[in-house]
Amino acid sequence: MSKLIKNAAGRMVPLEINGEKQVPFMGAGKYKPEAKKYAPKISSVSDFPLDGNKQVATIKEALIKAGLKDGMTISSHHHFRNGDLIMNQVFDIAKELGIKDLRWFPSASFPCHAHLIQYLEDGTINRIEGSMNGPLGKFTSEGKMKGTAILRSHGGRYQAVQDGDVKIDIAIIVAGTADTFGNANGVNGLSASGLLGFALADSQYADKVIVITDNIVPFPCVPWQIQGNNVDYTVNVDKVGEPEKIISGTTQITKSPDRLLLAEMTAKFCDSAGIIKDGFSFQAGAGGTSLSVGNYFREIMKEKGIKARFARGGSNKYLVEMLEEGLIDYILDGQTFDLEGVRSMRENSGHVWTSPFTSYNYHGKGNFAAMVDVVILGATEVDVNFNGNVVTHSDGFLMHGIGGWQNCLFSKTVILPIPLFRNRIPVIVDEVTTLVGPGELIDVIVTERGIAINPLRKDLIEATKDSGLPIKTIQELKDEAEKICGVPKKPEFTDEIIAAIKWVDGTVIDVVRKVK
Amino acid sequence: MSKLIKNAAGRMVPLEINGEKQVPFMGAGKYKPEAKKYAPKISSVSDFPLDGNKQVATIKEALIKAGLKDGMTISSHHHFRNGDLIMNQVFDIAKELGIKDLRWFPSASFPCHAHLIQYLEDGTINRIEGSMNGPLGKFTSEGKMKGTAILRSHGGRYQAVQDGDVKIDIAIIVAGTADTFGNANGVNGLSASGLLGFALADSQYADKVIVITDNIVPFPCVPWQIQGNNVDYTVNVDKVGEPEKIISGTTQITKSPDRLLLAEMTAKFCDSAGIIKDGFSFQAGAGGTSLSVGNYFREIMKEKGIKARFARGGSNKYLVEMLEEGLIDYILDGQTFDLEGVRSMRENSGHVWTSPFTSYNYHGKGNFAAMVDVVILGATEVDVNFNGNVVTHSDGFLMHGIGGWQNCLFSKTVILPIPLFRNRIPVIVDEVTTLVGPGELIDVIVTERGIAINPLRKDLIEATKDSGLPIKTIQELKDEAEKICGVPKKPEFTDEIIAAIKWVDGTVIDVVRKVK
Repeated sequence: MSKLIKNAAGRMVPLEINGEKQVPFMGAGKYKPEAKKYAPKISSVSDFPLDGNKQVATIKEALIKAGLKDGMTISSHHHFRNGDLIMNQVFDIAKELGIKDLRWFPSASFPCHAHLIQYLEDGTINRIEGSMNGPLGKFTSEGKMKGTAILRSHGGRYQAVQDGDVKIDIAIIVAGTADTFGNANGVNGLSASGLLGFALADSQYADKVIVITDNIVPFPCVPWQIQGNNVDYTVNVDKVGEPEKIISGTTQITKSPDRLLLAEMTAKFCDSAGIIKDGFSFQAGAGGTSLSVGNYFREIMKEKGIKARFARGGSNKYLVEMLEEGLIDYILDGQTFDLEGVRSMRENSGHVWTSPFTSYNYHGKGNFAAMVDVVILGATEVDVNFNGNVVTHSDGFLMHGIGGWQNCLFSKTVILPIPLFRNRIPVIVDEVTTLVGPGELIDVIVTERGIAINPLRKDLIEATKDSGLPIKTIQELKDEAEKICGVPKKPEFTDEIIAAIKWVDGTVIDVVRKVK
Repeated sequence: MSKLIKNAAGRMVPLEINGEKQVPFMGAGKYKPEAKKYAPKISSVSDFPLDGNKQVATIKEALIKAGLKDGMTISSHHHFRNGDLIMNQVFDIAKELGIKDLRWFPSASFPCHAHLIQYLEDGTINRIEGSMNGPLGKFTSEGKMKGTAILRSHGGRYQAVQDGDVKIDIAIIVAGTADTFGNANGVNGLSASGLLGFALADSQYADKVIVITDNIVPFPCVPWQIQGNNVDYTVNVDKVGEPEKIISGTTQITKSPDRLLLAEMTAKFCDSAGIIKDGFSFQAGAGGTSLSVGNYFREIMKEKGIKARFARGGSNKYLVEMLEEGLIDYILDGQTFDLEGVRSMRENSGHVWTSPFTSYNYHGKGNFAAMVDVVILGATEVDVNFNGNVVTHSDGFLMHGIGGWQNCLFSKTVILPIPLFRNRIPVIVDEVTTLVGPGELIDVIVTERGIAINPLRKDLIEATKDSGLPIKTIQELKDEAEKICGVPKKPEFTDEIIAAIKWVDGTVIDVVRKVK
């Protein structure tokens, strides 16, 4: 690891990671690369089958034809989440072929990929750049991964590929339905997982693209979320994934009185602040609290007789109901969180699939995230300067990915409903263990014992001052939690950097160190 | 004009045009560039309005903000065909601002753009690279344009932009509906023109992109055929185009007995050759004869009780009827040729919009054109080696664009139903005036006095030998025509090259000279 330098957020970050030069975080909106996008090689139709049939017999044949070799970057996407059946096979094949030092570049990895720990140990895989939920995160936090992990947001991943920060040699795209030309979607088939947006950048910029499906249809596969014109090989297998496992987190509205209270307070805050008005827009992720916020929005909207212009998904059955009731004109969906979302995307013209390019890419000419009136997010920690952490737990272990969290911070109002403590550990701290989002972009913290508004948002403070809501300072909230739970012990780390956290513009906002 | 060299088709072509190096045609499928695609500049969301509203007051303001200056390349698309109301205004503004030496890069120009001849004369516009239908073609053929014209197919235009052969400074995209962020479509609004595929490359690769509409809707404009994430400025004007003029050529099935005969013979030939079978695919363009071929296909399909998997459009009411009758699973549409096409695209999920990228780009990983079982095209001339011309008339004047014609030659079977003579001038000649498509890709010529099959297509000769159809050699057809009309006088040209014809891979297949 190279020399460390203090970035604009005061974090010490390296100027080089895995042998590649890095730019330290300069502040939100400050870094503007004077550079060009990554330019893939020009292909020629004359190198592809004239009848359009690119199908090969096995994943192994496709990998060999794609030229799999040592040191390559293999990308994948996580629409099957914990139900992915393909990526373990891909690396089994790499191991069988004696390939070494691969960089795995998934949009996220899940507990089902714990199988790959053996390949991280034996050198088949050098490192993972992508979210590592669960066991792979723990493995990394224990300092056992050879290379250094790099975590990026969904938008940051698109940016990294578009800008050439990460050059993908072989992209693996797993689809519920495809034709042999490579047109593919996640909407149809027994293994439908919704959309394929997380694989969009891979399809556009990777040197070789392999589409794997268990449902080949005659050309054309309509709709094509992935365009066959970007695809090199197609493979038909027995089963690509377990769609019942795409279900994310809690998909039921919470019954916990604590969480219901958080959700209700959040909705009331939005109402008091004048955010819930005809034609407004919102994004609330998965998880019981977020779902409940959406449900309270629904009640308020019905009461007022208004509708939302759009809601950003992660879609789920509750959002679909609101669409079908006419309370929302459009769901702009980035990821289906349940099978009702998949159904709706297939059936409702108002249920629109988006991608990290449209929604989150910070190196585009604008993106959707900034246009959302209010976004409801979570956090593992928040500090008194409103900085947020979503990747490490209070014990210092890297256990979560960034997802779209950083990207969503550009919404007009960002609200984090969080419990004041979890397992008697306060969530509001002096300084977040890992800085993932700068406080200047986080507007409101809603806890069961009070709501803290970022002093930068004078408009929100003014709008809600007579609301009767328990508005407090964040320091007051922190003190209250510590009065109950005591001051939490900080996690202890060695000096060894095991992961870097990228900001949405590709700069390094923080690092994660090995847990002692 | 630089040194000339004989290309693989035996045509003398320059190694440099308008100061830019050129590659001579090497034969179909022979040229493979070892190069990278064009890499546009990286943008940053921080340079765009956070609320997503990119609207400026006037086209003039947008052009000034986009940095319009001497020598720039301004692109446009032709979905409004002869009903375009915008591009004349754009160049009026350029003239007013005293800008010189622009390159206009439309996907096609029409008689309504004759207004621009004054700017070609006064130096505001240096040259047009794109189809020049009618008066602009005549102006060019008279040697009056300062620069040299370059004609490309629809796929070749995508290729040229993708590969960086043409760098667009400012793209003008005119849409029936858009939001202020720049998401746009041609499906909705009073000025709906169908799809916006011809502007796709422009939106992806141009330095600055301006979307002009007369129907601003609140974000999000759904569907977005053009993605706002690629757009710099939006403008709302009173009226962008006259959709009633998008109607291409003849949109009624011909009543001419000669043309009906050609159509019937073509359909019978396809049937005899075994092409019309369950799950087949076809493309028949606009124009009375082509429409009639589709109609005969329809009868044969009904009789056989079969359906087509897809038809490629130019869509029109006849194709839409077949889709709605269930005779076609999908229309893969590149351009709506009438308002029924626009309606169907809005209403039918089986009416799918495509783009020159999906359908025609030769520098992709395959394209749709090659997968079509049979394509019915026209030609101004065909020669005894089956070479085809679609751009110059028998008098030598450049009067038409290439359209998708070159791209469609990659279909499995290419049939040209053409009259043996037009105005007593034979259509089959010893050598085409301008070589636009090499004979090796053209399979069948259908005339009212007989059908000639390319000797390369032994399979078709064999399949139709007992069909009772009047199969002849192309020489026989030519002789027959000359017996009736006499040997036609060849057009006379000066040495001056006024236009170059590009092949689908960006090489120069032929040039057009100034008419004497």
